[in-house]
Amino acid sequence: MDTTSSLPRGFLWGAVRAGIKPSGRADLSAIVAPHTATAAALYTTNKIQAAPLLIDRRHLAANGGRVHTVLINAGNANCATGEAGITAAEECCEAAAEAFRCAPQAVFPSSTGIIGVPLPVEKVRAALPALRAAVGDAAEYFASVAAAIMTTDTRPKTAHANVHMDGKQVRIAGIAKGAGMIHPQLAAPHATMLVYLCTDAAAEPPLLQKLLTAAAETSFNRISIDGDTSTNDTVLLLASGASGATLSDSNSSPFAEALSEVCTSLAKQIVADAEGATHLVELNIRGAASDADALRIAKAIAHSPLVKTAWAGSDPNWGRLIAAAGYSGAEVDPARITIRLGDLVICERGGRSANFDEAAAHRYLTQPEFAVDIDLGLGEGACRFWTCDLTREYVSINADYST
Amino acid sequence: MDTTSSLPRGFLWGAVRAGIKPSGRADLSAIVAPHTATAAALYTTNKIQAAPLLIDRRHLAANGGRVHTVLINAGNANCATGEAGITAAEECCEAAAEAFRCAPQAVFPSSTGIIGVPLPVEKVRAALPALRAAVGDAAEYFASVAAAIMTTDTRPKTAHANVHMDGKQVRIAGIAKGAGMIHPQLAAPHATMLVYLCTDAAAEPPLLQKLLTAAAETSFNRISIDGDTSTNDTVLLLASGASGATLSDSNSSPFAEALSEVCTSLAKQIVADAEGATHLVELNIRGAASDADALRIAKAIAHSPLVKTAWAGSDPNWGRLIAAAGYSGAEVDPARITIRLGDLVICERGGRSANFDEAAAHRYLTQPEFAVDIDLGLGEGACRFWTCDLTREYVSINADYST
Repeated sequence: MDTTSSLPRGFLWGAVRAGIKPSGRADLSAIVAPHTATAAALYTTNKIQAAPLLIDRRHLAANGGRVHTVLINAGNANCATGEAGITAAEECCEAAAEAFRCAPQAVFPSSTGIIGVPLPVEKVRAALPALRAAVGDAAEYFASVAAAIMTTDTRPKTAHANVHMDGKQVRIAGIAKGAGMIHPQLAAPHATMLVYLCTDAAAEPPLLQKLLTAAAETSFNRISIDGDTSTNDTVLLLASGASGATLSDSNSSPFAEALSEVCTSLAKQIVADAEGATHLVELNIRGAASDADALRIAKAIAHSPLVKTAWAGSDPNWGRLIAAAGYSGAEVDPARITIRLGDLVICERGGRSANFDEAAAHRYLTQPEFAVDIDLGLGEGACRFWTCDLTREYVSINADYST
Repeated sequence: MDTTSSLPRGFLWGAVRAGIKPSGRADLSAIVAPHTATAAALYTTNKIQAAPLLIDRRHLAANGGRVHTVLINAGNANCATGEAGITAAEECCEAAAEAFRCAPQAVFPSSTGIIGVPLPVEKVRAALPALRAAVGDAAEYFASVAAAIMTTDTRPKTAHANVHMDGKQVRIAGIAKGAGMIHPQLAAPHATMLVYLCTDAAAEPPLLQKLLTAAAETSFNRISIDGDTSTNDTVLLLASGASGATLSDSNSSPFAEALSEVCTSLAKQIVADAEGATHLVELNIRGAASDADALRIAKAIAHSPLVKTAWAGSDPNWGRLIAAAGYSGAEVDPARITIRLGDLVICERGGRSANFDEAAAHRYLTQPEFAVDIDLGLGEGACRFWTCDLTREYVSINADYST
């Protein structure tokens, strides 16, 4: 398997300015599979779900798991907008269906931005002719979508992988956005993380769903920026079949591995671009009584303002880590806990390590990426999780009363 | 019932500088009941528990629920300090027992400050003679303890209540500290919230425990500053009996109400003094499917960095409130949700209210204290909860690499 920037065949990408983002930047995107693609999707488990997610479920069910056009607007989440929001999403699908010549049910709408403000359908409708003229299959079109779906992101997020299968080249390309309200809790048939994965393998929707669910579990479901699970999180995998290779239960392992790599890369890119963050932190929890306990500890640490602010100051205050483990709900025996920052042992048997070197620990934590390893000494439970620090800049971004 | 500053009889208070706080301020306190007091205590449910909490449990059990001297140091939590930490706490108790002339088991030690650093027992021991000379029963002595137990607190927290009972005057006085790592989850026989409640009523320990547990449930267990449940949280209620009035199951209602008022006052004072906070927020959740669901929603909101930073900016971004309710795990029907800021209706049936007045809502949120009312429209479940905003100053306080 090699990872190059080659794009899956059978897709067109494009983006234009519809005037939804107050900044006036490109904010309306399309991913088009002219011969339609099979699809699998995951949505947020938040019980408040944005209107487009309701439409997405309805359309995938009605259309046999097939998608022709993905229509994505940034700048407005179309969430907590009541019945009017659902009507607005439907009107956008009808307009997109007309522009891209497909059935309305073959349109997969997505929205991201502010919650509780009516979606300006007229702006979407007015921009669709320009959007139809703006789509293409080259790298710059793909890149234009990655840029147009951004909200508080500072940079676009993309990842690629190629797999050789049955003598053919199969390509996977992914686009993601998300820098805040990021603690995806996706469930098989789940942001405001938005992720669009395209491949030119052929696959039936149930197999795609199985592959996507497995890949998301150890990538998007293992990241948290602020602990806030969005109402709009969506991960969509589209398979055009244009490579000529067909995925089956028996031959899908290399594809599954490549898909997992693309998802993990995008998940880490999201955390690395977290609102105001200056450190990408990898948590390795091991020795827990169960994998579920390891995840409980990772989440408690990833959601602790005291831990996250200490990281912002490169402060090796491991007492805050052990306190978070203690209230996580996981089984914990203080006398068995070992904590390492990279290779530096800072806590042994629940107390400060005799080898604790505060200056070295502080230096290690000044790096833009670092790892915190916690061994509970109890069992075989483990998990890997990515999170970030909490900075003054995060507060500034989210406390500004015009956003 | 009236609330005055009169202090319960049968107690002495005092504080001195032992050199544990880097600031050099007073950091070693005692509350002494010369004729001993009956006691009830609640401790944190964090599975990592500081050494003094282990000793407290042991001493109360061994001494039949009676306390002579409470010894409190600030500047060091004596937590995650292993066996050495337990020995350190025991040595402090022995020295205090000698200074205040009681059995070591009649000493109730408490510690608050940094986690994972050995407690300087010698500093405690050296300061005990001065502490013994510094105790008294007047208001200034009581105030000196309230000041000496502070860590990142900016002001002391005290509350008082008087109850007339059996023709006698019964007094309750409480002292609390805590500004960070505050999300107490106390359990009957549960901070780094420290709370010391003294009364001159007489009462057997089991009744005291029952009264304390009930009062803490709707006060200390209903506040959160940062969602971090400390390893050291302790609430102690001491009854000297010096008033001559004896509490029983049949006559304790007025006392229970007064105790609840004192606890609620102290709990709100803790949140009002939260690290970096500029707003004290009362959450009133009602119409939930159950009380437990109402509490889930209150906690999700109180722990949401996006909600708390919006409050810091007086931003009426109610979409973040509804998103937090949605991922709280509580039963939620978006079409039935009503949200009010004070008297201002901002969300009805899950969408923006037709009466939404953004400027008025923003003005309301500029107040130092405000209320957020959420009616789920589902059932009778309710809860009242107090929390605060998340500011740049909070990050500064906790990201500073010398703390």
